Amino acid sequence: MMDAKEQLKMIKKGAAEIVSEYELLKKLEKSLDEKRPLVIKLGLDPTAPDIHMGHTVVLRKLKTFQDLGHRVVLIIGDFTGMIGDPTGRSETRKQLSREDVAANAETYKRQIFKILDREKTAVRFNSEWLDKFNFRDVIGLSAKYTVARMLERDDFNDRYKANLPVFIHEFFYPLMQGYDSVELKADVEIGGTDQKFNILMGRTLQKEYGMNEVQIGLFMPILEGTDGVKKMSKSLGNYIGINEPPEEIYGKTMSIPDGMIVRYFELATDMHPDEIAQIKSGLESGNVNPRDMKMKLAFELARLYHDEEKAGFAEEHFRKVVGNRETPDDIPEITITPDQTESGSIWIVNLLSVINRDFTNSKIRRLIRQGGITLNEIKVTDEKMKLQLSDGDVVRYGKRKFVRIRL
Amino acid sequence: MMDAKEQLKMIKKGAAEIVSEYELLKKLEKSLDEKRPLVIKLGLDPTAPDIHMGHTVVLRKLKTFQDLGHRVVLIIGDFTGMIGDPTGRSETRKQLSREDVAANAETYKRQIFKILDREKTAVRFNSEWLDKFNFRDVIGLSAKYTVARMLERDDFNDRYKANLPVFIHEFFYPLMQGYDSVELKADVEIGGTDQKFNILMGRTLQKEYGMNEVQIGLFMPILEGTDGVKKMSKSLGNYIGINEPPEEIYGKTMSIPDGMIVRYFELATDMHPDEIAQIKSGLESGNVNPRDMKMKLAFELARLYHDEEKAGFAEEHFRKVVGNRETPDDIPEITITPDQTESGSIWIVNLLSVINRDFTNSKIRRLIRQGGITLNEIKVTDEKMKLQLSDGDVVRYGKRKFVRIRL
Repeated sequence: MMDAKEQLKMIKKGAAEIVSEYELLKKLEKSLDEKRPLVIKLGLDPTAPDIHMGHTVVLRKLKTFQDLGHRVVLIIGDFTGMIGDPTGRSETRKQLSREDVAANAETYKRQIFKILDREKTAVRFNSEWLDKFNFRDVIGLSAKYTVARMLERDDFNDRYKANLPVFIHEFFYPLMQGYDSVELKADVEIGGTDQKFNILMGRTLQKEYGMNEVQIGLFMPILEGTDGVKKMSKSLGNYIGINEPPEEIYGKTMSIPDGMIVRYFELATDMHPDEIAQIKSGLESGNVNPRDMKMKLAFELARLYHDEEKAGFAEEHFRKVVGNRETPDDIPEITITPDQTESGSIWIVNLLSVINRDFTNSKIRRLIRQGGITLNEIKVTDEKMKLQLSDGDVVRYGKRKFVRIRL
Repeated sequence: MMDAKEQLKMIKKGAAEIVSEYELLKKLEKSLDEKRPLVIKLGLDPTAPDIHMGHTVVLRKLKTFQDLGHRVVLIIGDFTGMIGDPTGRSETRKQLSREDVAANAETYKRQIFKILDREKTAVRFNSEWLDKFNFRDVIGLSAKYTVARMLERDDFNDRYKANLPVFIHEFFYPLMQGYDSVELKADVEIGGTDQKFNILMGRTLQKEYGMNEVQIGLFMPILEGTDGVKKMSKSLGNYIGINEPPEEIYGKTMSIPDGMIVRYFELATDMHPDEIAQIKSGLESGNVNPRDMKMKLAFELARLYHDEEKAGFAEEHFRKVVGNRETPDDIPEITITPDQTESGSIWIVNLLSVINRDFTNSKIRRLIRQGGITLNEIKVTDEKMKLQLSDGDVVRYGKRKFVRIRL
């Protein structure tokens, strides 16, 4: 096993916050001394998402732990999920049946094991222990925390202050997640920065239930989508899915702003931190070309979710249609001025109306729906999409009309 | 059965508030129509109190319901009591064993059946249903109420605003009490005005659990102690216990301020409201002597907890030692001026030092401990006691020293 400081370096890569780094180092040292792998926990909602690069940030970090010899435990919050929202007053959580939960877990696993090592991953359902709680156990659990501290959680606080209802049972979601850490004797719990409250709850409850050592909270940043601004999400259309074809992964990656290259390397790949540091300084000094680094990133992401050969084909495809300009050499250019954009991004419909003043909005929308518009040969399918343009990007509209963007 | 309006009159006697009177009248009418007695609930803590006149206020009201033909159900909150406060952070609630709870219940019943009709009283323990709750049931229960509304309860609100901890499990006390009303399908829940929040919770939960008709909340005032000012309580030494000898009950009753006579009739006896109204108007017009009415009250209270004969002996005893002044006729008098009292009440130690300037505080305290001080032949046993004096009261100190108080 790698020495504790070197392990810490790998773990720290890209992390937003560790509570606390000192304790984590001690745990890593003790783990080496006792030849006992650490238990790394990730909690998952029992919904069935299409996993995209945003989700992979925490999964890649788990992979790092696996590569360092530690044990990963995924907790599927089926108990929470099956309870749903019994009031029926919230539309956000629907009650899931046992069958739904089981089916969703399978969908999860199929995707997750593209990243994690199946042999080194335990999958547990929290109904296993929470189903056994009686009223006394629940009272015991809820006696460990005060109402005031619970109301410090951002979303509760916001609603409470806005006189919007917070129902008492909602307090149980963080308590349950925290109790899962007690049950598992987790050494580290990993999550997005939005999970900070729930993960620190695990520390509190482990102490309250008499554990001598409490878990470390490892918080990963929320990855921005291909627009480089908003959180990556399917509904915003700024995502790169891990189930997409290699050409899509490659092409979408090429569309991210240059400023995102290092962040994507850090958060979405397994590249060693030293190598990332080199790329970063190369970009900062201007010794390396952002476009080359972006192609390296795009290749890497395509390779991770397919294989080297397919990533190679994706790169070739990209060079052909965009890089090597099989598009006619003499295509017209159009300059987009900063005042036509909103912090550098532009709504696809606005862009097309700049390119061709004769286009009405409804014609443009129809073109999008018919798949008739591409950016660097990647189809634009979302009418609401905001594009982050780079100098030299090629827009095709209709069958044979090209235009090169100049900024 | 009595007609609904006449029943309502009996029930309203002395009540602080009814939520709502209209609904109660409808329930009484329906009960007559359907020849179905109403279910009247009282919740009791599973502690073992010495019941005093303060406690009897709600019990006498239950007795009224029994006399009107309705069914009384006492709920002993053993589930709550056995849970206690699992954090150990509060000194107010200690965890009770099953044996403690059973023993306390017996102590309760022994005293309560001095007032209630044993044949018309059901005694239930709420562990019967709450022990069966699993985590899902608890979630379902707590989903019925919001955090904000729970924090409106006075004691929660006070602590929350003062940054004192309110633990989440404390929210379950009102929820459990409310759920008991669901389980019982209670028609009326009775309690002190301090129980308003918990009793209205029963209405909310009955509705939430799908009942068409919800319970009426009947709130009784908190009875003042013999000082006429503070809530009657053992720790304040201003109580009249139902287990005390008839002479004590009689004598202590004679020590209440005149302004309390009607209130005691209303809250601590079963006297018909019409008769009380007569006494009240007699006192107001000056046609009756307060002392006579107080003796009538003292006799009535001694009779209720013993019998007519013993109440007679108690009256005779009182007349002998105080009323007929077997104390020497020529006992000295001392005038207590308003500035020597605090709104008419005076600390026993201060009173004695006014009576005899040579007495040191420590000597007075010793006299009290030795039982050497009486007020109207009732021993003063509490060094902290504040006395509400009436003109003509007789204080004895030591074996043969008497002094008559003049105001």
